[in-house]
Amino acid sequence: MNYITRAIELAATHSRSGINGPFGAVIVKNNSVIGEGWNRVVELNDPSAHAEINAIRNACQHIKSPILTDSVLYTSCEPCPMCLSAAFWARIDTIVYACDRIDADKIGFDDNNIYQELQIGNIEKKIKLIQQQQEEGRVVFTNWENNKNKIMY
Amino acid sequence: MNYITRAIELAATHSRSGINGPFGAVIVKNNSVIGEGWNRVVELNDPSAHAEINAIRNACQHIKSPILTDSVLYTSCEPCPMCLSAAFWARIDTIVYACDRIDADKIGFDDNNIYQELQIGNIEKKIKLIQQQQEEGRVVFTNWENNKNKIMY
Repeated sequence: MNYITRAIELAATHSRSGINGPFGAVIVKNNSVIGEGWNRVVELNDPSAHAEINAIRNACQHIKSPILTDSVLYTSCEPCPMCLSAAFWARIDTIVYACDRIDADKIGFDDNNIYQELQIGNIEKKIKLIQQQQEEGRVVFTNWENNKNKIMY
Repeated sequence: MNYITRAIELAATHSRSGINGPFGAVIVKNNSVIGEGWNRVVELNDPSAHAEINAIRNACQHIKSPILTDSVLYTSCEPCPMCLSAAFWARIDTIVYACDRIDADKIGFDDNNIYQELQIGNIEKKIKLIQQQQEEGRVVFTNWENNKNKIMY
């Protein structure tokens, strides 16, 4: 099976109604599909419900782990920074994509703008970032560091 | 109410068992809390279940929209690139945070490494990125562009 064709097919099928954005994704490990996803942002009122995040969540439920080492993410479009970062957190090995951030920009999606926002310093970003009560926050981190029952991921 | 104190309190309470990472978040709109979240990555086997993503999803369910214009995200730690990008997608206005990516790095979390991965080109990244079948992908985008029923977000 051609997995990138499958990702494109998911994008086509689930965006036909106009409710879900035109994005699909498949996760493959040891030559088997362990997860699939498509964009459901508007359908679910969830801005994180991109195809890749949904495929990652689906695969993780399937293998009962938040870690997808040795897996490949096939996606109909280059992941946005949210989904790319999720792939890093999941320890995905390789991403294969069809369209890219420029193609997405041309049909009105913000992927490329958000990539640019991540390239610049916090003070320059459009979203306002303010640091407060750092010392109080650090107390929780120190307690975590000393917690003998903690599970790292 | 001090919302950053509430975010830190969520981080402390929900990480005490050692199962959930030490992160908490609150979303405020028009002086009311519309969403709360805490890290549940290990508990739910979901690498996207960071405090901020969970708070955003919770707030969006509450107001029945994927868009959180004029909202403030209070978080016990500077959002990682996944959560920061989710805040951009949700059109959040301001982020207030206590600890930062350097504090998170010191207790073993990858936020700072992932920020660095996003600063460099795709070819240099640790995750392998391969583009394939772009023209086939673009057909879905063109169909979407011409779809009169499409809902943009």
